[in-house]
Amino acid sequence: MSFQRFFCPQSVAIVGASQQKGKVGHEILMNMIEAGFPGKIYPVNSKADSIAGLKCYPDLLSIGQTPDLVVIVVPAKAVPEVMNQCARIGVKAVIIITAGFKEVGPEGLALEQRVVQSAKQAGIRVIGPNCLGVIAPANRLNASFGTGLPAVGAIGYLSQSGALLAAILDMANANGIGFSKLVSIGNKADIDELDVIMALGEDPDTKVIAGYLESITDGNAFVRRAEQISASKPILLIKAGGTEAGARAASSHTGSLAGGEIAYECVFERAGVIRCDSIEQQFNYALAFAYQPLPKGDRVVVITNAGGPGIMAADAIERSGLKFARLDPKTEEALAARLPAAANIHNPVDVLGDALADRYEFAISTALDDPNVDAAIVILTPQAMTQAAQTAEALVRVCSARPDKPVFACFMGAGKVAEAIQILRTAKIPQYPSPNVAVDVIRAMVDYVRWKARPKRVVKLFAVNRRKVENIVDRYVRRGLREVGEADAKEVLEAYGFVTPKGALATHPEQAASIAEQIGFPVVLKIWSPDIVHKSDVGGVKLGLKSTQEVMDAFDLMMYRIPKKVPNAKILGVFVQQQVTGGKEVILGMTRDPMFGPLMMFGMGGIMVEVMKDVSFYLAPLTGEEARQMLMSTRTYKMLQGVRGQEGVDIDAIAEALQRLSQLATEFPQIKELDINPFVVGPPGTVPIAVDARMSVEKD
Amino acid sequence: MSFQRFFCPQSVAIVGASQQKGKVGHEILMNMIEAGFPGKIYPVNSKADSIAGLKCYPDLLSIGQTPDLVVIVVPAKAVPEVMNQCARIGVKAVIIITAGFKEVGPEGLALEQRVVQSAKQAGIRVIGPNCLGVIAPANRLNASFGTGLPAVGAIGYLSQSGALLAAILDMANANGIGFSKLVSIGNKADIDELDVIMALGEDPDTKVIAGYLESITDGNAFVRRAEQISASKPILLIKAGGTEAGARAASSHTGSLAGGEIAYECVFERAGVIRCDSIEQQFNYALAFAYQPLPKGDRVVVITNAGGPGIMAADAIERSGLKFARLDPKTEEALAARLPAAANIHNPVDVLGDALADRYEFAISTALDDPNVDAAIVILTPQAMTQAAQTAEALVRVCSARPDKPVFACFMGAGKVAEAIQILRTAKIPQYPSPNVAVDVIRAMVDYVRWKARPKRVVKLFAVNRRKVENIVDRYVRRGLREVGEADAKEVLEAYGFVTPKGALATHPEQAASIAEQIGFPVVLKIWSPDIVHKSDVGGVKLGLKSTQEVMDAFDLMMYRIPKKVPNAKILGVFVQQQVTGGKEVILGMTRDPMFGPLMMFGMGGIMVEVMKDVSFYLAPLTGEEARQMLMSTRTYKMLQGVRGQEGVDIDAIAEALQRLSQLATEFPQIKELDINPFVVGPPGTVPIAVDARMSVEKD
Repeated sequence: MSFQRFFCPQSVAIVGASQQKGKVGHEILMNMIEAGFPGKIYPVNSKADSIAGLKCYPDLLSIGQTPDLVVIVVPAKAVPEVMNQCARIGVKAVIIITAGFKEVGPEGLALEQRVVQSAKQAGIRVIGPNCLGVIAPANRLNASFGTGLPAVGAIGYLSQSGALLAAILDMANANGIGFSKLVSIGNKADIDELDVIMALGEDPDTKVIAGYLESITDGNAFVRRAEQISASKPILLIKAGGTEAGARAASSHTGSLAGGEIAYECVFERAGVIRCDSIEQQFNYALAFAYQPLPKGDRVVVITNAGGPGIMAADAIERSGLKFARLDPKTEEALAARLPAAANIHNPVDVLGDALADRYEFAISTALDDPNVDAAIVILTPQAMTQAAQTAEALVRVCSARPDKPVFACFMGAGKVAEAIQILRTAKIPQYPSPNVAVDVIRAMVDYVRWKARPKRVVKLFAVNRRKVENIVDRYVRRGLREVGEADAKEVLEAYGFVTPKGALATHPEQAASIAEQIGFPVVLKIWSPDIVHKSDVGGVKLGLKSTQEVMDAFDLMMYRIPKKVPNAKILGVFVQQQVTGGKEVILGMTRDPMFGPLMMFGMGGIMVEVMKDVSFYLAPLTGEEARQMLMSTRTYKMLQGVRGQEGVDIDAIAEALQRLSQLATEFPQIKELDINPFVVGPPGTVPIAVDARMSVEKD
Repeated sequence: MSFQRFFCPQSVAIVGASQQKGKVGHEILMNMIEAGFPGKIYPVNSKADSIAGLKCYPDLLSIGQTPDLVVIVVPAKAVPEVMNQCARIGVKAVIIITAGFKEVGPEGLALEQRVVQSAKQAGIRVIGPNCLGVIAPANRLNASFGTGLPAVGAIGYLSQSGALLAAILDMANANGIGFSKLVSIGNKADIDELDVIMALGEDPDTKVIAGYLESITDGNAFVRRAEQISASKPILLIKAGGTEAGARAASSHTGSLAGGEIAYECVFERAGVIRCDSIEQQFNYALAFAYQPLPKGDRVVVITNAGGPGIMAADAIERSGLKFARLDPKTEEALAARLPAAANIHNPVDVLGDALADRYEFAISTALDDPNVDAAIVILTPQAMTQAAQTAEALVRVCSARPDKPVFACFMGAGKVAEAIQILRTAKIPQYPSPNVAVDVIRAMVDYVRWKARPKRVVKLFAVNRRKVENIVDRYVRRGLREVGEADAKEVLEAYGFVTPKGALATHPEQAASIAEQIGFPVVLKIWSPDIVHKSDVGGVKLGLKSTQEVMDAFDLMMYRIPKKVPNAKILGVFVQQQVTGGKEVILGMTRDPMFGPLMMFGMGGIMVEVMKDVSFYLAPLTGEEARQMLMSTRTYKMLQGVRGQEGVDIDAIAEALQRLSQLATEFPQIKELDINPFVVGPPGTVPIAVDARMSVEKD
């Protein structure tokens, strides 16, 4: 959709404009006027002839023109009638500022739905209700009750909290931070966060998209679109509040580990969205992304006039995983030739406490010329001879001469560096109070650059027996059964190319013994009951049985003991299964987020997954690269490669299994949760085995 | 020592005082005068009769009085002569501002040592050289070239970086942050960080000690004294730069895991020192500790006029591990009775966007009255009707009525909340730009309260055979051997009450078989060579040998294969050892930090220690409580307690073993590193076994 009418209307009507200071309808009108809006403004209020020198109209119909944009500030119950008028005169864009809709309960929700319904019929797009409005500084549009028009800049901002946006505007105005567009999305009754993000994505004045969100309306569309937009514009989001997935009770390992924030982390990672924890961090990032070039690599040089903050910067660089640039010998020679003997010509370059602006300028430009340097942090502490303002000017000169490498200032103090900070701000050189903030920003930029350079996503499709899975899943769904029996779950896996251990169900000890003899010893016995999920908790798993006698003993013991522990469990028998020996146990899993779909999990198998929680998640469908990345992002990866003389395992086989599982999850939305635990994997070339599996299904 | 002469001198001489603006000797004199110093000021300069209206003296001798404090600003090479004069007239306190000493190389170091030497002989205490000076605002003493006199406050600050202190002063002056004392310790030639920390500890005007350090002079004294002081005053330190321990190559697991920052973390944890990562964080903490009561618990209430920031605060509280206070039903009733219907009476309490100051005041004081609330965060966003300044005043009233619970403000924005922020600042109510900062501060306070409430440290002394260890250690040290053989290392452990597996050395296969028969099968064979440290890497460990034939085969295979892999290793034979079955493998270790002494380590044994790095460190000597804390702070602790039907292990036995090891490390400073890996521990009541041990010694 086009946001032209919202961002750059030729005429704006304010329904509910008021003469009374302090009223929202007054604030918006005054904001429109004071911003110097170049188009027509039509105040609408039946009780006034004119407001603030502008002719006032009793209703929209009496304007005689169709305004490009209508801003509604009347009480909630009067909104439907205003929407009717909008429809009659052919209005296409409406901002409903008014509160008292969805956010106040069922009645408000019903009203909101009525309003949206009538808007849809009339082809009207609506921002709000319950929002602060829309601001487009370059177009001198301030259709909000926020504050005075902010400066023009390259940051596009959207917020699901009007109050937070008000605070941001206040902060930005005090610090001279400029915006391309600001949109308060309120209750998102019609236009939602993704519509605005896409509009900002297409907006040539917006270089960075930033926002505060509490929810996402359409998970799949968000992932797809945000990924496209991130490729050209960074998206910086604060996401407050946990996910729905976190709230619901999860019965599988994967589900219980995927609580809370995991889904959003996966989504943001896939889509290249940069997540921020606070407004401060978000604006630290936004200013850097908007006005500095992206670093080509992760090697950072520090130039300082004081040892202490230089060490602090070095500490922060090391902690963040960035690289402390190793300067080229030629650079160090050049520095040595012109800096005082006591200066440090290695990184961090210490220009000494008596450095004037010219020494800084020389050192910074020399360091930036170094091919081993990707980004620079310039630290200044106000000492006796320090020329803070002139040094800032020098920095501005160096930056315009070298627009290919990002530079970050860290002028410490306040009063003595105030003028310098003003100069840096005007020149759009990011200035942070502490070196560790600059390091955090560079880390975010380097991560974004790496995300942009990721290989093209190609999801491999495996030949599988889809029909077989359909039959099994349908059977459970039809009967309203959630937990799929282990045997059926393994059939599903086999249909998707997994190998499971040999085995069969026994209902009496002699049968168990005979099955065991057919399989070959050692075998495992497992209690077989739809009511017992965690078998080992009740003594329902017996490993390493080596003879018919042991098998029969174990069978009888289970049958004797388990009914005492779980009196109400329906016990179908005991499953006799080949014991898989050797290899390493990992866990492969899937849980379906209600918003974003299947999340794939990988981790160390067995008990370790619960104790160490060394697991990784990724959004399905997985590419081969992503599957490998999931393995590599766990600490256990080292173990899979082989340590201390132990042989490594077939890592590609695990990656392929994850992709097959991802395909299964993608093709069967009825599968809600799935754990393969353990998935036993041996040395390269061997066939891994899905030893145990749990699966639950639900009507899609 | 007394800092009376440094902090509150009756008379100050400035040697090197200058008429020339911009010169350090001028700046200090002017700072002294402008601060309104009430005592006598003696400028000393042979080339002037008077400076800034004060009579000038050609040298110290001609003053005819002994100044309480002498500040030296003359060039480095002239400092010894000034020190001679100080000695002659009986000066006892000197600040050497002058640079050009240790920090410029060997010549400077020699000069510095000469100066300190002569000071010691004359009983003169010296701050510096290469420092910014000393400031005591309440005494109107500004013996520094930093900046104008800062406000009087309760924060005592020391800095090893003069430039950083200058930046801090500039920042503090702009933000109205006050200090009790500021000390730039420079090269710490005589007075070091601990002297200053102790002086601030005794200073009644200092409520919080904060500082920036790059090194610690005396590790043991620091730990001891800082722990005493922390019990009554919080110490907030920035420690920049890695430890020496991190730099040296470490051959043991414990040593290699203990690199970098671990020693300082252990020291700070033991001593209750609160570590800060940046100046901003440090002052966020300092203002809270200086002016707010300590919270009695970790339950936080949030009061807000906007939903968004309230959710952000809730997120931050959850992430930090603090508790989101669950309000008492009576509190919720009281809130419901007077707040509008749309308000949220549960935590986070939302007083709504139209809340005036009185509604805030009611909600805050009601929430603070709740017995389930230990601390409060008050969030305000500037909305149309918001009374920011009046709300700040209301907050001040509530805080003085309830001085027992800490309250933190988070007034978001800038211009519209500027007056409010000023009111909060004056009333010493901490104000942070984002809720997550407030949460970070509360987290630090809660941690400090817990540290203060820790049980009294009682180190248990076990009856051991110290003489035996002395003999073994001496033997190695005398011969200059670093690595202690496994058999000797085990004898050392046995002398300290550890049980090791049965076993003996065999030099031919038949001997191995006969030893194995005596021990009982299964057995382990290990190659025995002083040159092979990681036996399993070269196939030098064979487990689970069940018969004499298997033992003889394994013996011959090792003897055949290993010399090919490690041709230069001297092989003494093969050690035949009881195979310890069952139980869990953990690692117990010790590495000696050159500064702070023995660091004890605990972790999961075997390969897991390398892969998962799930280990904990603590400074020796350990109390029982600390040993248990070490176990509990690993994620593997859960596994030791028993998970999923698996039996737990004897946790007390591990804790006791750590304490015995700590006693060994404390009593034998020659032991540099020690690993027991694996230490096999079974169910409660069983005897754990130190299966393998490595130890290295060095002349103390």
